[in-house]
Amino acid sequence: MSDKITIALDAMGGDDAPHIVVAGANIARRRHPDVRFLLCGDAEDITARVARQRGLDEFVEVVHAPDIVGPEDKPSKIVRGGQETSMWRSIKTVKDGRADAVVSAGNTGALLAIAMLVLKRLEGIDRPAIASFFPTLRGETVMLDLGANLRCTERNLVEYAIMGEVFARTVLGIENPTIGLLNIGEEQTKGNDALKDAAQLLRDIDLPGEFVGFVEGNDIPAGAVDVVVTDGFTGNVALKTAEGTAKLINAFVRETFRNSFWAKIGYIFAKRSFDKLRSRSDPRRYNGAMFLGLDGVCVKSHGGTDAVGFATAIGVAIDMVKYGGNASLKTTVESLEPGILSPQSAAVAS
Amino acid sequence: MSDKITIALDAMGGDDAPHIVVAGANIARRRHPDVRFLLCGDAEDITARVARQRGLDEFVEVVHAPDIVGPEDKPSKIVRGGQETSMWRSIKTVKDGRADAVVSAGNTGALLAIAMLVLKRLEGIDRPAIASFFPTLRGETVMLDLGANLRCTERNLVEYAIMGEVFARTVLGIENPTIGLLNIGEEQTKGNDALKDAAQLLRDIDLPGEFVGFVEGNDIPAGAVDVVVTDGFTGNVALKTAEGTAKLINAFVRETFRNSFWAKIGYIFAKRSFDKLRSRSDPRRYNGAMFLGLDGVCVKSHGGTDAVGFATAIGVAIDMVKYGGNASLKTTVESLEPGILSPQSAAVAS
Repeated sequence: MSDKITIALDAMGGDDAPHIVVAGANIARRRHPDVRFLLCGDAEDITARVARQRGLDEFVEVVHAPDIVGPEDKPSKIVRGGQETSMWRSIKTVKDGRADAVVSAGNTGALLAIAMLVLKRLEGIDRPAIASFFPTLRGETVMLDLGANLRCTERNLVEYAIMGEVFARTVLGIENPTIGLLNIGEEQTKGNDALKDAAQLLRDIDLPGEFVGFVEGNDIPAGAVDVVVTDGFTGNVALKTAEGTAKLINAFVRETFRNSFWAKIGYIFAKRSFDKLRSRSDPRRYNGAMFLGLDGVCVKSHGGTDAVGFATAIGVAIDMVKYGGNASLKTTVESLEPGILSPQSAAVAS
Repeated sequence: MSDKITIALDAMGGDDAPHIVVAGANIARRRHPDVRFLLCGDAEDITARVARQRGLDEFVEVVHAPDIVGPEDKPSKIVRGGQETSMWRSIKTVKDGRADAVVSAGNTGALLAIAMLVLKRLEGIDRPAIASFFPTLRGETVMLDLGANLRCTERNLVEYAIMGEVFARTVLGIENPTIGLLNIGEEQTKGNDALKDAAQLLRDIDLPGEFVGFVEGNDIPAGAVDVVVTDGFTGNVALKTAEGTAKLINAFVRETFRNSFWAKIGYIFAKRSFDKLRSRSDPRRYNGAMFLGLDGVCVKSHGGTDAVGFATAIGVAIDMVKYGGNASLKTTVESLEPGILSPQSAAVAS
């Protein structure tokens, strides 16, 4: 790694790409002056767009890629023939050591498939996970998996607990993070076998962080633990349900202020405080899901985000590089007793 | 059924029972003058409490039960030796035709186990489900299952779609309800085999209501469909995550009004409108989960609710009886081609 951090950007991924990527890079380089970018995609288009962003060009190198991964493209198809896509090329720059991390707002399944193929898994990790963090009553909570692995074994869940703990500790700076397994009740008898076995393993093994047992859906927004571990199906549904509910309540609040003459007057007085609340709970502030468990930093931005949101995702990648999230994860995995993680993982990773 | 509707109440179930049950009955009988109650539990205690609720005694008959189901009691234990409990006796009055429905705020697992044993399943239904409804941007959405059946086959999910549709149509009065299967994406290739097979069955079979395909977590609070079908694990997590998120945003809003001098002034003006919003989104207004698929009406109240919330759950039971939810479900199931539902269900139910 040079003194400067280099982030590869899939310039063609996202609903409003390449605009959000190029403009997002320009926002991010003002926030992080020690960062430069490799912009991967249609070189001509990107170069023209960079020229229109004042001050960006000296922070940027363009890497041409003639092809694009479409939002509906099947990962299996892309894995076979997608080497010319901007997504693949951007991931490849990390593998080749030209970049320290990659950020894409493109097709999640394809991104995960290419990243697993090109970057490979971290030694000792069987299944990578998608992790994200969001605001709670007490700060921020990390949740994983959000959709990489729909049906999890107990070993997968234990891996996620380890990865989530390392992320919370090193990147979010939480000392001795608490970890909970998402279930439908706190009693030890609840849930399926994988959950019960994972809980038993997490109680038995001497892991970093503090395993507190099972938590329930309402504990996520309450911030009851720093790390919520769950399978990819449940995590994906829970995250989207929380996002949708936040939207619903915000719509109710807006409606309430329009409800009567007096409420409208009230809004005039309270507006500044509500503007602050809006900016604090702006989903663009929480954009950027990490793929954890890969031998390289790969961050997925929401496909529908704008330049500000894309810059946030770039910030997540920068933090992951700066705080050495993957190096810590390697150290932690190596410090575990052999055989604690998935039996197959050693063979798979080598 | 007599002209009056009779609702059996498990007087000893719930964190603050029997108070919430007796006081809740008195609120409910004012809202529904055509209803009378069987109060099951400690006769002496209940009789004394009824005497303190003005006007209640003529609407009430007390059914003595010496025993209580504790919140931590295992369903398997209660099923073997719980015949003397208030919960069992209250369900038994429905089986014996003395009551039209039963409401309990007690231990969910025990309630479901006794109800399945005593009331039996409706003919043609393999697995009963827990269903509830909650506010959305467009009205109300029914979701099931919320925890009766953690791992669902495609046939279970099809059954839930049928039961949810009948409930939305007959009890909520929604014409031609739309039905969605909860998944992590709308594409037909997403999700596990049970989900994909259930979607295929629901597209193939000519069911009442309109099956729209897969929906995602954010579609629940958005009210994208009238009925959301999912397995009990996912449904339970999604419901609790939504409840927790609503609480979180409401806490943020309260905090925002206290944030500055001007915001406090704003609150004075907007207070009336916000009081209305609070009463509209009061969780007590959405208390009462139905056990669907049983040969009898059984409603589960939240254990931590108060008398007002318990009265709402009584209202759900009354609606289920009044609008003939179970009779409609029977008719609908009988109208299906034989063999469409679980192959084993015919044998099981007979």
